[in-house]
Amino acid sequence: MQTELSNTLGAEHAVFGFTPFPAVAAAITRAGGFGVLGAVRYTAPDELARDLDWMQEHTDGLPYGLDVVMPAKKVAGVSEAEVEAMIPEGHRRFVAELLEKHRVPALAAGEASGWRITGWMEEVARTQLDVAFDYPIKLLANALGSPPADVIRRAHDHGVLVAALAGSPRHARHHKDAGIDIVVAQGYEAGGHTGEIATMVLTPEVVAAVDPLPVLAAGGIGTGEQIAAGLALGAQGVWLGSLWLTTEEAQLHSRRLTAKLLAAGPEDTVRSRALTGKPARQLRTEWTDAWDDPSGPGTLPMPLQGLLVAEANSRIQRHEIEPLLGTPVGQIVGRMNSERSVQAVFDELTRGFERAIDRINRIAGRAGTRGGTAE
Amino acid sequence: MQTELSNTLGAEHAVFGFTPFPAVAAAITRAGGFGVLGAVRYTAPDELARDLDWMQEHTDGLPYGLDVVMPAKKVAGVSEAEVEAMIPEGHRRFVAELLEKHRVPALAAGEASGWRITGWMEEVARTQLDVAFDYPIKLLANALGSPPADVIRRAHDHGVLVAALAGSPRHARHHKDAGIDIVVAQGYEAGGHTGEIATMVLTPEVVAAVDPLPVLAAGGIGTGEQIAAGLALGAQGVWLGSLWLTTEEAQLHSRRLTAKLLAAGPEDTVRSRALTGKPARQLRTEWTDAWDDPSGPGTLPMPLQGLLVAEANSRIQRHEIEPLLGTPVGQIVGRMNSERSVQAVFDELTRGFERAIDRINRIAGRAGTRGGTAE
Repeated sequence: MQTELSNTLGAEHAVFGFTPFPAVAAAITRAGGFGVLGAVRYTAPDELARDLDWMQEHTDGLPYGLDVVMPAKKVAGVSEAEVEAMIPEGHRRFVAELLEKHRVPALAAGEASGWRITGWMEEVARTQLDVAFDYPIKLLANALGSPPADVIRRAHDHGVLVAALAGSPRHARHHKDAGIDIVVAQGYEAGGHTGEIATMVLTPEVVAAVDPLPVLAAGGIGTGEQIAAGLALGAQGVWLGSLWLTTEEAQLHSRRLTAKLLAAGPEDTVRSRALTGKPARQLRTEWTDAWDDPSGPGTLPMPLQGLLVAEANSRIQRHEIEPLLGTPVGQIVGRMNSERSVQAVFDELTRGFERAIDRINRIAGRAGTRGGTAE
Repeated sequence: MQTELSNTLGAEHAVFGFTPFPAVAAAITRAGGFGVLGAVRYTAPDELARDLDWMQEHTDGLPYGLDVVMPAKKVAGVSEAEVEAMIPEGHRRFVAELLEKHRVPALAAGEASGWRITGWMEEVARTQLDVAFDYPIKLLANALGSPPADVIRRAHDHGVLVAALAGSPRHARHHKDAGIDIVVAQGYEAGGHTGEIATMVLTPEVVAAVDPLPVLAAGGIGTGEQIAAGLALGAQGVWLGSLWLTTEEAQLHSRRLTAKLLAAGPEDTVRSRALTGKPARQLRTEWTDAWDDPSGPGTLPMPLQGLLVAEANSRIQRHEIEPLLGTPVGQIVGRMNSERSVQAVFDELTRGFERAIDRINRIAGRAGTRGGTAE
């Protein structure tokens, strides 16, 4: 699975694996893919440095990247307390009542409340970058729009390519105009923030919109057959996130959550604003149902919703409250049915890809000899 | 593009084209595909016979099929008048006010109101079948669940394969249990009735669910690259509907509607209950917006909604009321940008498919020689 892009980056396969876990990112890179470490949970620069040190030691000189969440629009000079004050009392009550209904215990004294708004703010992302550029990362991806122009320049000065996620051809053109190097076309079926357009349609639309920039297909890709499909659509690689959540190297906060992921079918996700205020695909739970119920107060806009539910989500996760326990994940969750090592998952991806190529060549009436040169 | 299924049916390419227009269906078959004529608009058996006569004369002995809408559940002995009486007065008023707001003229005296509920009722579908089995159709497709057991038997007695659309692995398994021969996996991005699962995920899920039955990938497929993707996902063929709406042979009721389709982008469709009461993807219009507006009365369940809006839709179409003018169509509408003959469209599909195979073979490091035998 070699493309111009994977060759440029020095990866054996054009398979990009996004994950919040250093052990998973490093294993993806070691398996011949391109591991991308999600940085949003690192609010302390030294923690990021510690994990990037670890990545360096465990990637055998092979390439990897970092994913930050940096909004293009500045919310300059607004403190977390000021944002907190914008949350209506009725919404706070709704959260309290939901937690009470499900008898969710409080956190222990001194226990951190996990995800905070700060990880989504530009200043925090900038301190992450100050750390990251000290490491030989090959790619900087941004999950929320184009990063600011000076960040793109800084990445390019360090020889780092910049990628950004797009849910529509319009977003993708905006990224191109901003000077982005790679666009990740994130389809409707993907886990996390998604638009309305499915990967099958979005990928070629984005390829056409940003030509000649390379495009990665994301959303609905968790098998070698789906990798072949994404590449057939014109992508120079694929971007997989959900698939790694049930690998042995993943450090999910809860065994019960892993069990829910292993048991879930393709209809058990929902695109909901419950987590961040923007539509993000995740496991459907009684928590998402409550927020999506028309008789409830509805969700708040980003970043208010994320701030409102941060502590509640930490409590739900910490105490493993089964009916409320969820995570961002795509529709491929239906195929995540066993816990295996990243290497075993990667091997199955490459085998499935080869099978798909054999099959499509038979359908096309081609010999498809391996290792040969183009006709 | 040959698969076991296309060979069984005697088609050169495993490309199935669904269309309500005999001229389009016949042209798809002549181009080497498998044309499937939608029968829902034929309420009079002699009109269907006339058009099937025409199909016979214009398909050069090549194979084609028929698509009916036959609910598995009987609504026996219920008249259209009785169903009409179940529609709330407030909903009738909402329709009348919408038509008035947009100054939609009435139909002329004696002008038919177009689509009627009757085309969706089993008795009508059965009279269509009485006609259809007099013709050498090779495939009977059902758009709404599995057809009744006696219809499947009757088709098999005539040597006709039976296909049914499915939006989830659960539906697909039900079809298999009912004795269906082929399952059409209709993804979220498709035009018309769809479920929540996108084609990229749905196709392999359905392939696994009904193994060893052949599966057709539907939804989001309008280029040769997308055909290659659908086949890479394990399908034995692809099912295309939207793409033909802007061909020269299509007899859309309105030039303005054709113009809207040619101008629309991938974000200009919506999955709405406005047309039939079940979620169906269609052009987003002020009509769908009004029905999907939470401040309105909302839609009625099938078949009430279809009956409620039938005359209104005829008036909108007859008088080409621009802001309300719509049609079922998938997200690939963004790529339908010129009016061409079916043959020209088909030629581009096969060229795009060959390009995609060349590209994927390069990525896989294969020679991909044309016309050779498997290694």
